[in-house]
Amino acid sequence: MITVLSGGTGTPKLLQGLKEIVNPKDLTIIVNTLENDYFSGVYVSADIDTVLYTMADMINEDVWYGVKDDTFITHERLEELGCGELLRIGDIDRATKIQKTQLMEEYGLLKACEIQAKNMGIESRIIPMSQDQTDIKIITDIGELEFHDFLIKYQSMPEVLDIEFSKVKPCEGIIDSIRNSEAVIIGPSNPITSILPILSLDGVWDALKDTYVVAVSPIVGSGAVSGPANKFMKALDIEVSSVGVASLYQDFLDNIIIDNEDENLKSKLNQIVNKVTITNTIMSNLGVKKNLAQIIIDSISLKKRGDY
Amino acid sequence: MITVLSGGTGTPKLLQGLKEIVNPKDLTIIVNTLENDYFSGVYVSADIDTVLYTMADMINEDVWYGVKDDTFITHERLEELGCGELLRIGDIDRATKIQKTQLMEEYGLLKACEIQAKNMGIESRIIPMSQDQTDIKIITDIGELEFHDFLIKYQSMPEVLDIEFSKVKPCEGIIDSIRNSEAVIIGPSNPITSILPILSLDGVWDALKDTYVVAVSPIVGSGAVSGPANKFMKALDIEVSSVGVASLYQDFLDNIIIDNEDENLKSKLNQIVNKVTITNTIMSNLGVKKNLAQIIIDSISLKKRGDY
Repeated sequence: MITVLSGGTGTPKLLQGLKEIVNPKDLTIIVNTLENDYFSGVYVSADIDTVLYTMADMINEDVWYGVKDDTFITHERLEELGCGELLRIGDIDRATKIQKTQLMEEYGLLKACEIQAKNMGIESRIIPMSQDQTDIKIITDIGELEFHDFLIKYQSMPEVLDIEFSKVKPCEGIIDSIRNSEAVIIGPSNPITSILPILSLDGVWDALKDTYVVAVSPIVGSGAVSGPANKFMKALDIEVSSVGVASLYQDFLDNIIIDNEDENLKSKLNQIVNKVTITNTIMSNLGVKKNLAQIIIDSISLKKRGDY
Repeated sequence: MITVLSGGTGTPKLLQGLKEIVNPKDLTIIVNTLENDYFSGVYVSADIDTVLYTMADMINEDVWYGVKDDTFITHERLEELGCGELLRIGDIDRATKIQKTQLMEEYGLLKACEIQAKNMGIESRIIPMSQDQTDIKIITDIGELEFHDFLIKYQSMPEVLDIEFSKVKPCEGIIDSIRNSEAVIIGPSNPITSILPILSLDGVWDALKDTYVVAVSPIVGSGAVSGPANKFMKALDIEVSSVGVASLYQDFLDNIIIDNEDENLKSKLNQIVNKVTITNTIMSNLGVKKNLAQIIIDSISLKKRGDY
């Protein structure tokens, strides 16, 4: 069993590779819920849906959000009516969200995800990090912003001074999943708004210390491969580089995987992490994704043999 | 100014005729809200939307619900997911409902309808009968049913023993609209579940007594032209005929318009209502609708001249 900690874009790309290499039944994916909220009457759990669609081969890879080849009839009509949605919700995607909202109100988010994953033929276990609603504030140079307003309305343009999010309870099964896994993979997602919320859950940090942890750095050079990770890292005084990522995870990190471009950081990283793996982490096609997944799995196997 | 009391199918057909005969600016339409409720995260006010779409020439005349030529991508996907919606909500129609829900939560239902009517280029005033949520129970031979379950899930099949609905506050403007109108038209909607809820609002009954009231009977022969009016009338011990309709409204009714088929009821009706008008009330095309509207308007004009 392998547990993956996931946000919404980088890690799902890696999951596409992993599910070709590992039996999907042997994967548990713990997904960030920091930004979950209601939009247009439905509960939107963007990262969970991205992971669901990725594992079901339905994801729209142009934006890593929503369903490929979806239509936007309701969404576009709302724009015509002068009441545009902040999130671009497609018509098929909206059905997923309506169903999840109903299932969630009846059974809670964990069970809702379980049912939806099963519906979509997904054999991996997908666990939301929490069933609680997180309050999150992005404190910027133009004032305090809602997370989606910062990301979408303001296109991550303002300078970020601080990020505050409320403490939530870990979802049932998370600690057990980490402790019972032969390894935990921290995907190349935003360390601050996707991974840190999972790490901040009671018991997760300690459980990771007792488990073999491999992280793929989402930072190549001094820029995040996608998303506004840079601004969030800067705001928390974390160096925007693989070194910054490793330092954030160093309490429990056994192996960091960085891009070829960052080979020069190896000696610096070796002072923080036991093992540094250098490869192509720019997942521009399935070949790269599978290769990266294979390197991770090999590192886990080596560790089992005590060869690292 | 003329005020129309409306439900969801018969009266909108009449409105299609009326808006060709009368300046739409001179029409106020008070609409039933008895069955309003949340479905799939959005507030559904079926009769209001039918009136809005009718006045905006957007109505789907096949079912007198929703928008013509709409698609059902989200709705059909929900069915595929095993989580079908009780109401068949189209993709364009869903945008109306999402917008109304948001406007309603911000401004209340009255203002939401006003904004949506204006958006759709409607010049008539459309007033929901109430901004309150009505509790309604249909007591049947198979038990107590929700209104939409009775209508849709059980296709109005069970025998109705009783109907109970809670008292709600009339929307602002309703009593003034009735009192300031030269006439009130009660459309051919279900007398029990569409019209009676409006009549039961505090002050409406008395205001109608002081106004010239024309009703179009929704019953032809002994069957309602559409919908389950028969069962509801029987349950309340009201004769299922134009006579039953007239007796329900007799306290304030000045003129009842019945179908040619019911000519034999004229003398019986004359004992209840001052004036009985006989014409074709089966509104199968715009010609019939306009003709019926013209007869109503003529009756209102005659009354002004004191010639009735």
